[in-house]
Amino acid sequence: MSNSDSSFDCIFCKIVKGKLPCFKVYEDKSFLAFLNVNPVNKGHVLIIPKKHYETILDMPNDALSQIILIVKKITKAILRIFNIDSCNIDINLGKEAGQIVPHVHIHIIPRFSSDEFKEWPTKQIPEEEMQEIANKIKNSL
Amino acid sequence: MSNSDSSFDCIFCKIVKGKLPCFKVYEDKSFLAFLNVNPVNKGHVLIIPKKHYETILDMPNDALSQIILIVKKITKAILRIFNIDSCNIDINLGKEAGQIVPHVHIHIIPRFSSDEFKEWPTKQIPEEEMQEIANKIKNSL
Repeated sequence: MSNSDSSFDCIFCKIVKGKLPCFKVYEDKSFLAFLNVNPVNKGHVLIIPKKHYETILDMPNDALSQIILIVKKITKAILRIFNIDSCNIDINLGKEAGQIVPHVHIHIIPRFSSDEFKEWPTKQIPEEEMQEIANKIKNSL
Repeated sequence: MSNSDSSFDCIFCKIVKGKLPCFKVYEDKSFLAFLNVNPVNKGHVLIIPKKHYETILDMPNDALSQIILIVKKITKAILRIFNIDSCNIDINLGKEAGQIVPHVHIHIIPRFSSDEFKEWPTKQIPEEEMQEIANKIKNSL
């Protein structure tokens, strides 16, 4: 039996259970890392908790504090094997942010000088509105 | 005196020291969070360690485990105040990945259904090469 309804059809839960294959790069008791089969660049890795959480907001603090250390460890290895200096470490939280699989996954995307992916454009927000937003966040913490 | 040469001209170190202003949203003994003055979207926050580290690979594990919990806390507040479900949490590590300021900063970018930022395109890598890359990373950990 799965832990919950939401994990029953989860593709990442199936990978954890060995019901779907993956190109595994790391595994321990609580976490698994494998190559993204739809990579932005070669060596694009996903790190997931084995337990089904939809977003990092659902993860207990100790699990979150642990997974980021695994991200660090794997990032070092990726930079080393490709002999590069750069990568993007991304969490897409929620559908509007590009999260397709509703099971926490942290992307590590190796970056090469030749890949030419563009960062998103920035905008200017009036100073008064910036102050208002900063105050709202501060007061909501 | 600054901790090191690299921190002397660092814009984020100047913000930490109060020599440059910011729209502060959070501060404790070790970390600071403020609005990005060149936001991708309104409410785009940067979280930094007060101590100067160029990338998360230079941060001690305990600091890294702590900063991600602050990211979680601030993300919750951002989703709440904008009444949204999505945001991108991004670390641009190295110049090729879009890191402009060489002082660790984690982006939280609120995402709205109307913003239409596109994820980067993906590619297909032959299965043999995927297996080879996975093995290389695994063996380099």
